[in-house]
Amino acid sequence: MTDTLLPTDLVEFLLFDWLELDQTLARPRFADHDRESILALLGLADRLARDTFLPHYKKADQIEPRLTPEGDVHVLPEAGTALRAYAEAGFMAAPFAPDQGGLGLPELVHMAATGSFFAANLATAGYAMLTVGNARLLVHNASAAQIDAFVPRQLDGRAFGTMCLSEPQAGSSLADVRTRAVPDGNDDLGPRYRLSGNKMWISGGDQDISDTIHHLVLAKIPDADGSLPEGTRGLSLFLVPKHLPNGERNDVVVAGLNHKMGYRGTSNCLLNFGEGTRFRPAGQAGAIGWLVGQPGQGLAIMFHMMNEARLGVGLGAAANAMRAHALSVDYARTRLQGRADPRGAPVAIAAHPDVARMLTRQQAIAEAALSMILFCARLVDDRDTAETPDARAQADRLLGLLTPAAKTWTSEWGLEVNAIAIQIHGGYGYTRDFDVEQLYRDQRLNPIHEGTTGIQGIDFVGRKLLKEGGAGLEMLAERIARTIDRAGRADLSDEAHALSAAWARFLDVRQALPAIPRDHWMSFATDVLDGFGTTLAAWILLDQALVAGSETRATLARFFIAYDLPRAHRAFDLALRKPVPLLDFTGDAP
Amino acid sequence: MTDTLLPTDLVEFLLFDWLELDQTLARPRFADHDRESILALLGLADRLARDTFLPHYKKADQIEPRLTPEGDVHVLPEAGTALRAYAEAGFMAAPFAPDQGGLGLPELVHMAATGSFFAANLATAGYAMLTVGNARLLVHNASAAQIDAFVPRQLDGRAFGTMCLSEPQAGSSLADVRTRAVPDGNDDLGPRYRLSGNKMWISGGDQDISDTIHHLVLAKIPDADGSLPEGTRGLSLFLVPKHLPNGERNDVVVAGLNHKMGYRGTSNCLLNFGEGTRFRPAGQAGAIGWLVGQPGQGLAIMFHMMNEARLGVGLGAAANAMRAHALSVDYARTRLQGRADPRGAPVAIAAHPDVARMLTRQQAIAEAALSMILFCARLVDDRDTAETPDARAQADRLLGLLTPAAKTWTSEWGLEVNAIAIQIHGGYGYTRDFDVEQLYRDQRLNPIHEGTTGIQGIDFVGRKLLKEGGAGLEMLAERIARTIDRAGRADLSDEAHALSAAWARFLDVRQALPAIPRDHWMSFATDVLDGFGTTLAAWILLDQALVAGSETRATLARFFIAYDLPRAHRAFDLALRKPVPLLDFTGDAP
Repeated sequence: MTDTLLPTDLVEFLLFDWLELDQTLARPRFADHDRESILALLGLADRLARDTFLPHYKKADQIEPRLTPEGDVHVLPEAGTALRAYAEAGFMAAPFAPDQGGLGLPELVHMAATGSFFAANLATAGYAMLTVGNARLLVHNASAAQIDAFVPRQLDGRAFGTMCLSEPQAGSSLADVRTRAVPDGNDDLGPRYRLSGNKMWISGGDQDISDTIHHLVLAKIPDADGSLPEGTRGLSLFLVPKHLPNGERNDVVVAGLNHKMGYRGTSNCLLNFGEGTRFRPAGQAGAIGWLVGQPGQGLAIMFHMMNEARLGVGLGAAANAMRAHALSVDYARTRLQGRADPRGAPVAIAAHPDVARMLTRQQAIAEAALSMILFCARLVDDRDTAETPDARAQADRLLGLLTPAAKTWTSEWGLEVNAIAIQIHGGYGYTRDFDVEQLYRDQRLNPIHEGTTGIQGIDFVGRKLLKEGGAGLEMLAERIARTIDRAGRADLSDEAHALSAAWARFLDVRQALPAIPRDHWMSFATDVLDGFGTTLAAWILLDQALVAGSETRATLARFFIAYDLPRAHRAFDLALRKPVPLLDFTGDAP
Repeated sequence: MTDTLLPTDLVEFLLFDWLELDQTLARPRFADHDRESILALLGLADRLARDTFLPHYKKADQIEPRLTPEGDVHVLPEAGTALRAYAEAGFMAAPFAPDQGGLGLPELVHMAATGSFFAANLATAGYAMLTVGNARLLVHNASAAQIDAFVPRQLDGRAFGTMCLSEPQAGSSLADVRTRAVPDGNDDLGPRYRLSGNKMWISGGDQDISDTIHHLVLAKIPDADGSLPEGTRGLSLFLVPKHLPNGERNDVVVAGLNHKMGYRGTSNCLLNFGEGTRFRPAGQAGAIGWLVGQPGQGLAIMFHMMNEARLGVGLGAAANAMRAHALSVDYARTRLQGRADPRGAPVAIAAHPDVARMLTRQQAIAEAALSMILFCARLVDDRDTAETPDARAQADRLLGLLTPAAKTWTSEWGLEVNAIAIQIHGGYGYTRDFDVEQLYRDQRLNPIHEGTTGIQGIDFVGRKLLKEGGAGLEMLAERIARTIDRAGRADLSDEAHALSAAWARFLDVRQALPAIPRDHWMSFATDVLDGFGTTLAAWILLDQALVAGSETRATLARFFIAYDLPRAHRAFDLALRKPVPLLDFTGDAP
């Protein structure tokens, strides 16, 4: 077993050599930090993750959250212990500014630290990720009184956060949300409402490991005639605490738990708001919530948290893949099977070329995935703290363009790393005795939640490329051109050529898009997104090979570009050739 | 929900139009059967599968086989009820000759009927598949006395069969088998031995749903000095019944159950032979077994059953994918989400181009997979009953060449169909409330058991292409050339061209192979196998489009050739370009 959950050398290389964290640290906002303090903090995070999050990884899968006879959700207590240790060590508050009780860490460092917790136990760390995202949304969008009332309790780990968007009939289509918010006066925390409706797929929707829960709920304020406004413009955002500031229980109850394939440690609930059966706050049915931001701004505000959550999903996918790879290497080095020479002794399976190929591919994908997310985290820092408004705006545009790819590529190909991990373990990998089995089931959620791969594809092609014309691409194009130029002059000229060809083909697609019928591009949007993500991964590995100047990183780049990059051409060709007809499945159910 | 587990029209098309079953039925061996009787039998199979195998599909996943305090394995009783109904309806005996109590069905018909049971409940049907394979091996290799003693009880369902090959330290490398068989005299059933050793991954290794169990066990007979012969040539095959003919319990005990990701209804055991602790047959430790065939012939005999089991795995993978697709179509037709027009009513998700693409791809893959297996079943019939020795030999060669592809392509891409099924169901598909979740977990075993994908790749490239020079390819090449010619004259000339190019590239690989260093071809053998399987699938769909003359089948061929066939080129290019270096993971475990 390797000593750390994420390899120390790799993280240091990615942060300081590849993503030039020293540049970021030179900004006034980060004056309190230096290389040494950052590395110490990352070491602490990895040790804490190993000591408190990892030990109950399997147990949290075996002993799922359950609904008690009283209607509450009981979660494995070890998860609560781990999260308290996490908050006490300051990690919940870490990305927040010092005047909010945080460490004012660059997002790049926060993400790298979070990666260790995700690698150890995605399901337990999920509660923290949601809480940090929830608190961040409040810090940016809530009133001072709301922030004072809710955020400190989140940052010290007494309250966990959720995001309540989907409903049973409205998963990907938030325009169809039916949860209703009726005005209920004003108080210290601003305009108060009574909410009623059903929210589905709420991660951490109920649990007994934090004192209370802060739900961020998308709902619609009815028009004067009582009807709900149509479309997503009618959505407003509300903070609905499980317990009101006076300690009273709010009218939010668990209607059911979802029993998932994996990711089981994170409770996932159907929540009923405003039933008025078990709880009637202030003597009346209706969940009490306070408007966050302005009416009708709900989706716009929530998008910020959703985009952050998407990077979080990508980080979880990458961290899971990193762990699956590490376990595979350990197994392949120690498992004896077969012989190099029929009369020789059995060899470790790592010596078999087929296994070496699988391990090399795992490492290329997992490290490219982690790098892709950390690259985005660096863009978050640049968006927030770069020296000029222009540099901040550029970073913001590129971040928007990359987010669907960073969420999707890591999720889809992270799963391939997990599949390979099982394959390397053979029959053992298919049993629940080995963590790679659970890692695979956990990972399978990532292409679904926070916007399915299909939704990300449409966002990337329909919004980012078509509607916004690919804004943000110039900055990336410049970086890629620089890498191609350098690689062409190094002994990586084949790779430079291959990357150049894939990138040119992608630009062809962008140019051709406006003339392609909507139904056609919508049918292959996920392929274009995958082709883009794969090209991005190829650039990342090639760029890193140049920065590192090491044979290992050159091998990873060469392998990935030979083995995986051709897939991008196939995807782009699909977009550029004449449309392939599809079968029509819309007939009535027989 | 569709009415049948496998679509009646499709099965009839595949058997009679595409695979010309009437030709086979014209052979003297099959004089008892005609189209009408075959279709009636397939209808019966599908109904029986739906009525008795399907209802406990989920329950068998939830209530796993368990070890009783007495050390026996308890299996869900519904599985036993279903299998008794299966045997009573004659399906266990169906593929055997009438003089063995069977129906003398063509293998093509037997496989099509089995497909319905696999689609309904792979885990329960697995017991039947193993039993049929076990009895077949005996019919072909055992002595008349052994056949009389063991086979009738298998065909009427009182005894189930297993195959005991792997050991904890010897999974894919059977040369390392250490189970020892010591001579113990002769009796009516031939040379008797006492076996001792541990066998791992034994499906159906113990259960309480048949009266007894017949284990086929690979073991080594020690040399005069007590040492075990080296390599696979030292392997002999033994029939070791759980109960001896006199009813006494044999010395075979369950040392543990494996707890798998899926496929849970089939018990999977670690078996100890010859411990002598719980059972001492005839007062002595050592499991009593009778030699089947000659000493040292074990692996050669077992290969027959293994190849049959590989096609069985492929059939299970295809049937699983067919069901996942059918469930996806049902869901996509009824689940409303999103709108075609922002002001319109919500539409069924089948109307979204991204979903239509996923459904079309599922259908292309699942039907190509089922077709690939049935094509092999037709080759089995030709091998056994074609008119001339030359035709029989040709069929045998092509079957050998296709078996690794038929096992692997169906398993790997069947899993993709399952992944798409979950994606179409969204969050619901990730919950254990929906069968697609379980189908995905079940399917994940198929690339592992009966020879992993890595083993199949090495078999295909190293044995079938290199050592045997691709014997069998001529017959396939001729069929493919005929299809390309016909398609080129129809409105499928683009597709003819694409198939022709992929096939030519595959032949380039075959030709180049002898000059490629062993480590290099071994590292990409699975890719070549996948490229071959994908080319084969493209040919199948194109050929079927010509035979059917229907727009639906032409659409499937066009889609698959545009969408999936390019992957084959990538695989063949990998083989033909200069070797890509791999990382070395053989260092000592840190």
